[in-house]
Amino acid sequence: MARIVMKFGGTSSANTDALRLCAKHVARQLNSGDEVAVVISAPSGMTAELSKKISEVDEKSKHLDETDLILSSGEQINAGLLVIILREMGLKARSWNGWQAGLITDDNHGEARIIEARTGDLCDSLKAGEVAVMTGFQGVTKECRITTLGRGGSDVSAVALATAIQADRCDIYTDVAGVFTADPAIEKNAKLIPELSPEEMLELASSGTKVLHSRSVELAMSEQMPLRVLSTFKAGSGTVIAKGLETHLVSGVTYSRDVSQISLMGLAGGIDSMQQLFSALAKKKINIDLVVQSSTRQTGLSNLVFATSKLDHDRALSVVRSDGLSGLYQNLNSVQEMTKVSVVGLGLRSQSGMLEIFFRALAEANIAMHAVATSELRISALMPEHMIESAVKALHFAYGLDKTST
Amino acid sequence: MARIVMKFGGTSSANTDALRLCAKHVARQLNSGDEVAVVISAPSGMTAELSKKISEVDEKSKHLDETDLILSSGEQINAGLLVIILREMGLKARSWNGWQAGLITDDNHGEARIIEARTGDLCDSLKAGEVAVMTGFQGVTKECRITTLGRGGSDVSAVALATAIQADRCDIYTDVAGVFTADPAIEKNAKLIPELSPEEMLELASSGTKVLHSRSVELAMSEQMPLRVLSTFKAGSGTVIAKGLETHLVSGVTYSRDVSQISLMGLAGGIDSMQQLFSALAKKKINIDLVVQSSTRQTGLSNLVFATSKLDHDRALSVVRSDGLSGLYQNLNSVQEMTKVSVVGLGLRSQSGMLEIFFRALAEANIAMHAVATSELRISALMPEHMIESAVKALHFAYGLDKTST
Repeated sequence: MARIVMKFGGTSSANTDALRLCAKHVARQLNSGDEVAVVISAPSGMTAELSKKISEVDEKSKHLDETDLILSSGEQINAGLLVIILREMGLKARSWNGWQAGLITDDNHGEARIIEARTGDLCDSLKAGEVAVMTGFQGVTKECRITTLGRGGSDVSAVALATAIQADRCDIYTDVAGVFTADPAIEKNAKLIPELSPEEMLELASSGTKVLHSRSVELAMSEQMPLRVLSTFKAGSGTVIAKGLETHLVSGVTYSRDVSQISLMGLAGGIDSMQQLFSALAKKKINIDLVVQSSTRQTGLSNLVFATSKLDHDRALSVVRSDGLSGLYQNLNSVQEMTKVSVVGLGLRSQSGMLEIFFRALAEANIAMHAVATSELRISALMPEHMIESAVKALHFAYGLDKTST
Repeated sequence: MARIVMKFGGTSSANTDALRLCAKHVARQLNSGDEVAVVISAPSGMTAELSKKISEVDEKSKHLDETDLILSSGEQINAGLLVIILREMGLKARSWNGWQAGLITDDNHGEARIIEARTGDLCDSLKAGEVAVMTGFQGVTKECRITTLGRGGSDVSAVALATAIQADRCDIYTDVAGVFTADPAIEKNAKLIPELSPEEMLELASSGTKVLHSRSVELAMSEQMPLRVLSTFKAGSGTVIAKGLETHLVSGVTYSRDVSQISLMGLAGGIDSMQQLFSALAKKKINIDLVVQSSTRQTGLSNLVFATSKLDHDRALSVVRSDGLSGLYQNLNSVQEMTKVSVVGLGLRSQSGMLEIFFRALAEANIAMHAVATSELRISALMPEHMIESAVKALHFAYGLDKTST
């Protein structure tokens, strides 16, 4: 007997028909003798609909505590509906709001972090053979105000719950069959990856693979909680992500469309100027993605390219153009509509020639890169949006991902 | 300085425009120096929409605990939106779910009764000058499960909150200007009643006047909490309902369309048979409205007419037709589509001639009654549905209600 957390996303719980499908997965898991806790999302579309209502009265998104109260209602509705369906199938079940389950968070409304999980009552319910259906995405402060966990919040609360109740595994049911070597919508030869190390998954998630949010992967990695990603709608065992599983020289090619590029040419002052720039950006809470810097010996000046999310582009520009900073460089240019294509794999740090493959593949496909950055597990390049498809295909082929059986 | 509870119904909070109107009433009350707690309903239509979803998975309405969880989300959304609007107007405000406000109920899900109100935190918030916006219609059991209070629940929770926080008055904002001497949609000369005793309001509410639910009037009466009913949409001071206010010989004419009639002719066995019948109906939780019985000395047999709600009609019929009971009487007939027209007033019990006016008015209007019943404060008659309008008009005129200035 194992203890399993099963998390269902918004498209898996869009309506009562979809919820019936979720219930079948729960029944199957339960029939194999396991204890089952479920984390359920809001019906897809409902959060957007509520956000629209909120923006009618709160243009500047200032009232995050009340916004959390409003947004938490979607999961509440689905939790109740799923419990009813499970009971009508003859199973024992009950719902748990975040506050009932004991998911205590800080009071950073809209982006709250779980600081404690008092899940004793919920565990008693599991031991009594009940399916515990918990609302995803939400918790409660010590002062009893409802919070939401922000982007990827339902995945995060699933992993947090799994950790708190010492589950054996956390299964994330979604609308895709698992993690692929590339986006199957772009690359038809993309292969499902049956097993991944948490490190690889984290690099994939943070470089654009949308199957799992990187916050949930980070949490699972630090808590050593095995994850599985699989489809609600199609049979299949999905992708298991756990420490000690087989790793890959190259696990996949991934991309992100949410990238803007800002380039500063003729930057003087070396490391001091860089520090000034990035601390000014950090003060405005602008997240920096990729950074590339190159210096010329003769002049002592350098060129700096960095990337932000599209949403932060205008704010980042006004920071680097501000009085104290605009004197640091000679020229500035920026492109708001940019993309980042990455290759991820544990082999990138140890195997020689991996970088060469990257450049050769893109060169042969006539793709002009704006900037390239490498890390231990990743090579990323910025390029114009229309080049995504050919870049993904070229890299997928060049690294032999269409041939891997794993 | 007074402490006022303001309750807004579903049509008063249907969308953000309507909520802005509620907020203006709150600001006005606050500006007059009062402490204000608000009880807010779900947007009109949302509860029906959620009930439809629930019925898709729970045909027999068996899972009332989860149904309560689902239905409580509507008030939650509106509470958050109203608080945001108030804050954007520069006022201090925060939301309170039933469980946060401390409204403890029994575990009779769907029809829960409030057993305790631990409103200390909420009172602290009021004293600090915050508007407390509480979700109507809901509470929480001692085991921390969410409950709803059933029909009229938002009014009931408003009165309960007002009592718990020792408010000076509970104002019920709705889509009508107050309580009228008759339904203004039927009788154009109907007059607003500025003041009513709780006893009169209770009779009006339980005989069909829909402005207030009788459970909330009962609670206000037993707790001696003054009520005021007034319009969200039109200026006016509405109807105040409080002990010691001026009473009326006849306060109004009212009607209910939700009535079915069952008649048993040639009933033998007198009081014993009656007891058998009504205890069988009570066992099936069928509420009996009006009962009229008449005996003939010669035969010792009697005729019995009673009324139920339309929804209970078929179940009531199958009870009286059941094996143990069908031998008690000679003939049965029933009319599912019936109505009840009533005259309510404190003068009915003391003033002679009041019953005569009733019969004369209906006779002159050529209305054939199926049954008449009287109580201390009320005279009611059953009649076919199409006669409502002429009956209301005839009685309104006959009792001089079109002339009253009070």
